[in-house]
Amino acid sequence: MTDSTTNMRLKLPITCFILEIILIILFGVLVQYDHETDSREWHKSNHSDYENDFYYRYPSFQDVHVMIFIGFGFLMTFLQRYGFSSVGFNFLIAAFALQWATLMQGFFHGMHGGKIHIGVESMINADFCTGSVLISFGAVLGKTSPVQLLIMAMFEVTLFAVNEFILLSILGTKDAGGSMTIHTFGAYFGLMVTRILYRPNLDKSKHRNSSVYHSDMFAMIGTIYLWMFWPSFNSAITAHGDDQHRTALNTYYSLAACTLSTYAMSSLTAHDGKLDMVHIQNAALAGGVAAGTAGEMMLTPFGSMIVGFLAGIISVLGFKYLSPILEEKLKIQDTCGVHNLHGMPGILGAIVGAVTAAVATTDVYGNGMKDVFPMIADGGKASYQGGIQAISLAVTLGIALLGGLIVGFILKLPIFGQPPDTICFEDSIYWECDQPGGLQEQDPSWLMSGLFTKRADVI
Amino acid sequence: MTDSTTNMRLKLPITCFILEIILIILFGVLVQYDHETDSREWHKSNHSDYENDFYYRYPSFQDVHVMIFIGFGFLMTFLQRYGFSSVGFNFLIAAFALQWATLMQGFFHGMHGGKIHIGVESMINADFCTGSVLISFGAVLGKTSPVQLLIMAMFEVTLFAVNEFILLSILGTKDAGGSMTIHTFGAYFGLMVTRILYRPNLDKSKHRNSSVYHSDMFAMIGTIYLWMFWPSFNSAITAHGDDQHRTALNTYYSLAACTLSTYAMSSLTAHDGKLDMVHIQNAALAGGVAAGTAGEMMLTPFGSMIVGFLAGIISVLGFKYLSPILEEKLKIQDTCGVHNLHGMPGILGAIVGAVTAAVATTDVYGNGMKDVFPMIADGGKASYQGGIQAISLAVTLGIALLGGLIVGFILKLPIFGQPPDTICFEDSIYWECDQPGGLQEQDPSWLMSGLFTKRADVI
Amino acid sequence: MTDSTTNMRLKLPITCFILEIILIILFGVLVQYDHETDSREWHKSNHSDYENDFYYRYPSFQDVHVMIFIGFGFLMTFLQRYGFSSVGFNFLIAAFALQWATLMQGFFHGMHGGKIHIGVESMINADFCTGSVLISFGAVLGKTSPVQLLIMAMFEVTLFAVNEFILLSILGTKDAGGSMTIHTFGAYFGLMVTRILYRPNLDKSKHRNSSVYHSDMFAMIGTIYLWMFWPSFNSAITAHGDDQHRTALNTYYSLAACTLSTYAMSSLTAHDGKLDMVHIQNAALAGGVAAGTAGEMMLTPFGSMIVGFLAGIISVLGFKYLSPILEEKLKIQDTCGVHNLHGMPGILGAIVGAVTAAVATTDVYGNGMKDVFPMIADGGKASYQGGIQAISLAVTLGIALLGGLIVGFILKLPIFGQPPDTICFEDSIYWECDQPGGLQEQDPSWLMSGLFTKRADVI
Repeated sequence: MTDSTTNMRLKLPITCFILEIILIILFGVLVQYDHETDSREWHKSNHSDYENDFYYRYPSFQDVHVMIFIGFGFLMTFLQRYGFSSVGFNFLIAAFALQWATLMQGFFHGMHGGKIHIGVESMINADFCTGSVLISFGAVLGKTSPVQLLIMAMFEVTLFAVNEFILLSILGTKDAGGSMTIHTFGAYFGLMVTRILYRPNLDKSKHRNSSVYHSDMFAMIGTIYLWMFWPSFNSAITAHGDDQHRTALNTYYSLAACTLSTYAMSSLTAHDGKLDMVHIQNAALAGGVAAGTAGEMMLTPFGSMIVGFLAGIISVLGFKYLSPILEEKLKIQDTCGVHNLHGMPGILGAIVGAVTAAVATTDVYGNGMKDVFPMIADGGKASYQGGIQAISLAVTLGIALLGGLIVGFILKLPIFGQPPDTICFEDSIYWECDQPGGLQEQDPSWLMSGLFTKRADVI
Repeated sequence: MTDSTTNMRLKLPITCFILEIILIILFGVLVQYDHETDSREWHKSNHSDYENDFYYRYPSFQDVHVMIFIGFGFLMTFLQRYGFSSVGFNFLIAAFALQWATLMQGFFHGMHGGKIHIGVESMINADFCTGSVLISFGAVLGKTSPVQLLIMAMFEVTLFAVNEFILLSILGTKDAGGSMTIHTFGAYFGLMVTRILYRPNLDKSKHRNSSVYHSDMFAMIGTIYLWMFWPSFNSAITAHGDDQHRTALNTYYSLAACTLSTYAMSSLTAHDGKLDMVHIQNAALAGGVAAGTAGEMMLTPFGSMIVGFLAGIISVLGFKYLSPILEEKLKIQDTCGVHNLHGMPGILGAIVGAVTAAVATTDVYGNGMKDVFPMIADGGKASYQGGIQAISLAVTLGIALLGGLIVGFILKLPIFGQPPDTICFEDSIYWECDQPGGLQEQDPSWLMSGLFTKRADVI
Repeated sequence: MTDSTTNMRLKLPITCFILEIILIILFGVLVQYDHETDSREWHKSNHSDYENDFYYRYPSFQDVHVMIFIGFGFLMTFLQRYGFSSVGFNFLIAAFALQWATLMQGFFHGMHGGKIHIGVESMINADFCTGSVLISFGAVLGKTSPVQLLIMAMFEVTLFAVNEFILLSILGTKDAGGSMTIHTFGAYFGLMVTRILYRPNLDKSKHRNSSVYHSDMFAMIGTIYLWMFWPSFNSAITAHGDDQHRTALNTYYSLAACTLSTYAMSSLTAHDGKLDMVHIQNAALAGGVAAGTAGEMMLTPFGSMIVGFLAGIISVLGFKYLSPILEEKLKIQDTCGVHNLHGMPGILGAIVGAVTAAVATTDVYGNGMKDVFPMIADGGKASYQGGIQAISLAVTLGIALLGGLIVGFILKLPIFGQPPDTICFEDSIYWECDQPGGLQEQDPSWLMSGLFTKRADVI
């Protein structure tokens, strides 16, 4: 299944080499260790080792890291013939995006005397930004070349950093777990990109756009890891102490409640009451997305559970009823259904965050107010903070959609080796493995060769 | 394979919704942040952030969380056609059980002024209680509907909390890693339930009650995660400092010794010397179970290794010789062999704990005695503590067996949609996937369609 | 496929029991809790619980543990019919090696008053030493019996401890992440063993010495876990504070850069530009190996990225061009290509470490010099430290090659049940599973029975 247009032999190496060499040069010029990773700086002042931020954040960082590489990577392996690409392209674009994000985020909010200072917190932020790119990847999964994905990642990371800067640094928005900055942004950016890349003849690859038993099992590895570590995700960069602790707790209960409503809705919306793996793999995670903004606030476990409960319901309904409409009417071909897992639950999370902020009182937050809402602690009104949160959602949606529009058109340029409509959702275009495509697909014996992709070697 | 009796369309959604709404209401009325998660409370007193319990326990919590959702979930995927249910029902009942456990455990030993205070320690305890339910799930695996499992979880969590309260709060038993409270309780409860649910015609589903190559590989993911993180499990709620450290160390060596005796016994008991995956997947973990009570004590690495060594031997012998007897003579159909992994090693762990407690001296424990054995530090006799430990095993067995008896009869009510004898160990009753059951089973071509469960979509 | 020579019924149990009983006796005589795990010792002095080394190192330890058991274990499951053995023998020899390593390493550098003191740091060191054995396992994968592997592990652990002692304790070498002590040593030891065990007729098993689609997916689980947790590996035993923090950071960027150069080279060296899973699974990790020595130094993110970038290129080139030459000309049958992942990148890491050490200045390290280069802080010359580093590489290579030579000949003794040339890379010799070998292999229906290994039970 080699084809001159999808042949990556020059395109991919050139793209990777140019990007990496630019990264290395920019790191050489701009990046240096921060106060906590630099040998001389750390030893200048007199502190105990356990005060190093490493011990507060590194375990959370590693959980986030697992979500990015195992969680997102394996969640997308549900397609029957796209496992190599799901994990493999996820790996490639994440490895690129985290380096580029270090520069972009550092440029916007980590400069000290002309240098970008980095440590564990910037690593977490880079992974967060990468997560947003991977959400967009979910929308275009199976329909793009690795070069297109790298180009998309380059632009998306940049726009992510701009949006994040506007929200966190200019407006003073709170969004520790990224309901807006990560999930809403990544989802609507990706949805707009996939809209621009609309393929009227995608049904020619329809038979591969579904799962088989084992691919669903691999996908569950991704789901469960995302679910388990979401408390770490939402709490990774909140303030130390009660803030990290509370955020993890809120997310834990939000996810648990979301899981029950997901199972209930999945069974209820099937004519024979059978559970649908797509719902379980995705909607059960919506509770983590929806707790992304308010998780660090005094949402209470009670509030967290209500949020998770609603998120699960919305998400299953989206998969069942809204996605087909979006595809038919709006021509949005959303492979993983990111609108249902990240889009709508992200908006729900933003709204919950705005409302929770608007009702914050010193009576509830005490001296912890300065950690959660510094503007209110400095005398600002809670309702003003709530308004800022709501405006931030609008800003995020605007930048995501406009950015996705422009980047979508860039990716349409016929030079990036995107697959033809007939061979989407197929590993063998970009990977060394046996070619099951073409005529044989009607033939059960192909199903076997599909499994035994190097069958030629075997026999 | 839709059948009116196993159709979950109303039963499962109604059960999930009612349970979750009750949980949310009770959380609203009863639950609030504890001192370390509440913004105002934490900032009232003057402590450093690193003193927050989050930093002592959250990494252990996440390891335990992985054991519950990946460890138990994937360990049970060894069945050839029950992967969706193994991971999926594990996910569902664990998400329910951890919420319900928060309430039940809080009710019995976490009330402060009429409110249940929660933080990372209660999250770990909730996961522990959930683990016990999942052990029982292992005994009935493949033979129960998700509604039955939720009902079982509801009762079992309650009884777990009662037993735990009697042991830890009334008797003053030490059982940090839960050899008694978690493993013995969960195993014998589940064994009694499966005894009451005895199916004389289960051999009609016998051909599905075994593994295939790939399902054994998925199950090894569960095994290895349980094995690796068991040191975190046993040490998660011991006292800070040397106690957590020592418990992790003891468990590490107990498991390593257990692994060698498991491999030795597995090969020795096979006529051709070949290793049996069932033993490796399960018996190699018995060292963690058996170190659950004494792990926090001054068991020494030497003692830990002896315990693990014996646990592996007992467990393989159980799988090989005892399980068939239990099934034939006592009509106990124990799908996962929980008696061999959790039952007997749990009892061994309880006995080791009693003996180790009975020989505790101030000479060995020094000022650390108050953390490990507060009753002895307060002047009690070590032999008395040993006696308490032994009594606790009896109490646990009594409550587990009696509780399992009653709950077994409740689950027998013909309204929960349990599968017929002919279609046990089969995903397609409760999940959207191709139906391999019925006539085709004799036909090799079915084996293929079994793999390609959405074959209809494919072709 | 039972054969008297490969029958493990007596050989394996006897080996396991003897080894474990020796271990238990030696632990009883020699090993005791260290100051931080002993109840009396810890409570003698007046320190806060958070000063216990457990909180500095246990999260890193668990990440390393995952790399050893999941990372190495699953990485090697890429072979189509060797999944049980890859994960299962990895499990067995690791469980043995970590106990034996505790004794050997303790004997050489952990003795206090005739006793080996153990805690979390010795657990990490034991896992490190085990990692070295597993690298060698990769070289001989598919061609050795479990008894041979245990014997190899016993000798290799001993030699590892000798080499480590010479480097770290006598010479004063710095090698926190083990570019030399772990990777170079394990790779060249294994390469020499596999050279001595050269099988001229191995092509009779050639059809099994390759991957299939699903086995490559399982292998990616191993790859991604190794990749994600390598920052924890390299930083696990560096000094507390900035050192651990900086090492993790350096490794993170080295790996990211390595991933991009790996993808570029994999596509560039394929005539049709398609990515090769072997490269992605292995070469993308070379950045972690190459940052093993210099990771704790002030390498800068810039330097780390250059190192990772080069490591990826070298590693892919090795797989593509050097491995076939080594096999043909030097008769080195390196199943996993450990020379490309651990050998050459390990040497690169050693050289980078020597150069980085040679240019160390107080201006850059400040008061942190005593943690990174105690000899320089004490007045030694940086160039001298650099020389020591270079000599250490030579010593490591010498001990590894000589050790591998001797151990290879020991393993050649015809009493350990090694598989015949016709049935290498095959689980069914040592595991209970259906036998696909023999005539049927030409027959597609075998491919199915290969999947459904307990087919006899099924039908």
